[in-house]
Amino acid sequence: MTFRTSLPIRFGHEDHARIVYFPRFLHFFHCAFEDFFAGNGIPYRESLETDQVGWPAVHVDVDFQSPLRFGDTFDVDVWVAEMGTKSAKFAYRGRCEGRAVATAEITVACIAMDTFQAQPIPPKYRALFEAHREPPTD
Amino acid sequence: MTFRTSLPIRFGHEDHARIVYFPRFLHFFHCAFEDFFAGNGIPYRESLETDQVGWPAVHVDVDFQSPLRFGDTFDVDVWVAEMGTKSAKFAYRGRCEGRAVATAEITVACIAMDTFQAQPIPPKYRALFEAHREPPTD
Amino acid sequence: MTFRTSLPIRFGHEDHARIVYFPRFLHFFHCAFEDFFAGNGIPYRESLETDQVGWPAVHVDVDFQSPLRFGDTFDVDVWVAEMGTKSAKFAYRGRCEGRAVATAEITVACIAMDTFQAQPIPPKYRALFEAHREPPTD
Amino acid sequence: MTFRTSLPIRFGHEDHARIVYFPRFLHFFHCAFEDFFAGNGIPYRESLETDQVGWPAVHVDVDFQSPLRFGDTFDVDVWVAEMGTKSAKFAYRGRCEGRAVATAEITVACIAMDTFQAQPIPPKYRALFEAHREPPTD
Repeated sequence: MTFRTSLPIRFGHEDHARIVYFPRFLHFFHCAFEDFFAGNGIPYRESLETDQVGWPAVHVDVDFQSPLRFGDTFDVDVWVAEMGTKSAKFAYRGRCEGRAVATAEITVACIAMDTFQAQPIPPKYRALFEAHREPPTD
Repeated sequence: MTFRTSLPIRFGHEDHARIVYFPRFLHFFHCAFEDFFAGNGIPYRESLETDQVGWPAVHVDVDFQSPLRFGDTFDVDVWVAEMGTKSAKFAYRGRCEGRAVATAEITVACIAMDTFQAQPIPPKYRALFEAHREPPTD
Repeated sequence: MTFRTSLPIRFGHEDHARIVYFPRFLHFFHCAFEDFFAGNGIPYRESLETDQVGWPAVHVDVDFQSPLRFGDTFDVDVWVAEMGTKSAKFAYRGRCEGRAVATAEITVACIAMDTFQAQPIPPKYRALFEAHREPPTD
Repeated sequence: MTFRTSLPIRFGHEDHARIVYFPRFLHFFHCAFEDFFAGNGIPYRESLETDQVGWPAVHVDVDFQSPLRFGDTFDVDVWVAEMGTKSAKFAYRGRCEGRAVATAEITVACIAMDTFQAQPIPPKYRALFEAHREPPTD
């Protein structure tokens, strides 16, 4: 199962070239990552504060297919492409009205928030991730 | 005495209208605020971490005189316009090649970082602020 | 009549002090400004591109009452506090679960996008603004 | 020859986890990209405005080695890892006091700013890129 969220593109997201400034895509993908947790019953804050489990990015791979402009809606599909013991690779497919805009793979480590040390992904999160291993089928 | 710093304006700072997106000016003024501390021998981190003294903004007043564009250098003068027991009003004059761009007054509270409660401005910072009460004379 | 919109506060919106970095409030208020147009049938892009009418901020006044944190929802009421021939002062009241967070007054000029010169507010926008002169009553 | 630039890390660059929010690294690398042009006698604005040559990112690959914190200085080496007819792959090595922080490869297309269509890299830029093919040797 894929998780899908939609983000509004704002006036201030564009740069001098009048398209979305590409670094902002990583912010959008992180927003989709937060929505993935919240939309599955775990507000992202619960992971960081209550469970003291953090997810820093260790590797990022983004492919840009077409520009995004302000007023657009950015539709993002999220799934878990790979899962290791202490890390997971999230995949993102971003589109606008069905048009391919950008895809990304972002590998996050699982860390304890108090020590910032890597740790095994706790069962609660492993179950969440396992339930979202499928890429979108459309 | 006025403190002066200069900031480079970047490609990504512009918005759809091809001028600097106005919310970014508050970021620039905060950068000037950080430079004010560092340039006077107190890295801003020392205030927050070592001295546990924080300076959240409680009031902001900005006047925009002319646009700023990427490739410009933003020259900012910083001084302390008013000083209370537990707060101070910083004044900023931002120019580009002598042209008036934006001015601001930003009132910050003095807080203890552990409790987030307002506290009297410690002598070390009071002395720093007192030494910079003069607006620019040019 | 007041216009109301809600904005999600994100992980990346917080700063070192673990509250929303105050410059971002101006971005949030601009998002509410965009939503005000779109929510009243005029996508903001239509103003800038089709009608060639722009609204740069010339003065900003913000008052911060309490911190905002990631995971919060920021509810913003928008109304037009003053209207001149070539400018308008928008008022914003931002709250979180009924708690006062920040209020702002942002004066925007009405300009022609091709010349960047001030111009009288066109009737279409004057009518829109006139219909939203009332502050919130709750 | 490698080009090197240094960027100050700001209070507002950190996120809730009190390390630099990872999407900002792409902004830092773009700042280094702009400095690469300017530092070699071609202000980035000259490329976009005078020469009407743009460089949108089409692929991004970032590896994060250690966190960056506010008050740090981010030292970035820039070189051209690959050069095609209509695109170039820029490589970035980011360090802080000699410690590995993040590396990136960002492929940019060469486009005509008026049509947004890909075009062969003009000789002036090809010469600039050719002169910076060497990775850092330290």
